[in-house]
Amino acid sequence: MEIKVVRKILEENDNAALAIRRKLRSRNQCMVNFMSSPGSGKTLLLEKLIPLLLESGLRVGVIEGDISTARDAMRLQHLGIPIAQINTEFFGGDCHLAAPVVMTALQALEEHPLDIVLLENVGNLVCPAEFDTGSDLNVTLLSVTEGEDKPLKYPLMFRSADLALISKTDLIEATEADVPLIRRNMRQINGELKILEVSAKKGVGLNELKAQIVELHRKTTV
Amino acid sequence: MEIKVVRKILEENDNAALAIRRKLRSRNQCMVNFMSSPGSGKTLLLEKLIPLLLESGLRVGVIEGDISTARDAMRLQHLGIPIAQINTEFFGGDCHLAAPVVMTALQALEEHPLDIVLLENVGNLVCPAEFDTGSDLNVTLLSVTEGEDKPLKYPLMFRSADLALISKTDLIEATEADVPLIRRNMRQINGELKILEVSAKKGVGLNELKAQIVELHRKTTV
Repeated sequence: MEIKVVRKILEENDNAALAIRRKLRSRNQCMVNFMSSPGSGKTLLLEKLIPLLLESGLRVGVIEGDISTARDAMRLQHLGIPIAQINTEFFGGDCHLAAPVVMTALQALEEHPLDIVLLENVGNLVCPAEFDTGSDLNVTLLSVTEGEDKPLKYPLMFRSADLALISKTDLIEATEADVPLIRRNMRQINGELKILEVSAKKGVGLNELKAQIVELHRKTTV
Repeated sequence: MEIKVVRKILEENDNAALAIRRKLRSRNQCMVNFMSSPGSGKTLLLEKLIPLLLESGLRVGVIEGDISTARDAMRLQHLGIPIAQINTEFFGGDCHLAAPVVMTALQALEEHPLDIVLLENVGNLVCPAEFDTGSDLNVTLLSVTEGEDKPLKYPLMFRSADLALISKTDLIEATEADVPLIRRNMRQINGELKILEVSAKKGVGLNELKAQIVELHRKTTV
């Protein structure tokens, strides 16, 4: 185990995040960071969202962050878009995507003319919130199967999010989830948070999410 | 942000874990560490498991690890057992329970004569696996809502587990989860792993889990 100094890591991360934002602006691109626990439905959401963005005429690329395997990238391969896979096990087994590693992945996508980069972070409701990835929008998913109290118990993740997705709403009945309570708990942590209910399986909420990303692209690019 | 050195942290952790095992042995106690993503059902499992252990004549205490809030401890309060709550936000916001903090919690429980300490780790499928808590049994929960591929994507958690619980089996139908595939993926990562299917909501698998913990207590104590 090499010796690392946390302060230096965070400074380096912020510098790399700044460089990423400059790079995105210079290429007229914007980037969206999707974060959540493992199994909240990030990959299926991307699989259903990306065709809608492509239909809007936007060119989409994906950066897949996982500790191990390229399984998520393989699930998206049939969409025929550029995908860069990061396996953090080759970067110390990190439990999050750090900006320097995201920069490497962006460089790997450089040959493709893209409008939007979708970043799927490592499944973890804690650590990814601590590291700025240089993204223009932070999206946090919380599935209805995870319990209404999670925004209160993992506050940083919901404080650092711009948009929260209550996912797997097709399971509300089976789980007896209290969605109004989830919303209240999210708002208690972050009064500014936008909240959308989605079911990637049933196609619910995807057009609204697409519209938000299209608008983000309009605002962040010339 | 204070400067920390990772190597030193891990050495200190291993030393504290060793001291915890000595302390448990000297008091004829054993400790079980429950780990999983947020919302895999750790707290409800404890709520249903503890009365079975109490009925077996064992004296049970709980250490609750959360970043923020004492909500899980409050959910267990009606059981009338000793509970020590750790909020890691007072220890740098750690995404896992480190052994020195667990030792502090054990000392807080010292006045109570206990046979078994159940440790509910911070909800996180990554980091808790990296830190030995001094426990005698590591249990990892994976709920059927989280996706069959998670053992492959978060291998360290399943490699460091002695026992895996496939939880929320009452949702198999609603989620169309492939339980045999979950089992195969767990075994691919850890051929030694014991696997139990449980539904805390429906009371399935709890007696088997109780029996394993009773047996652990028998083996680790005089």
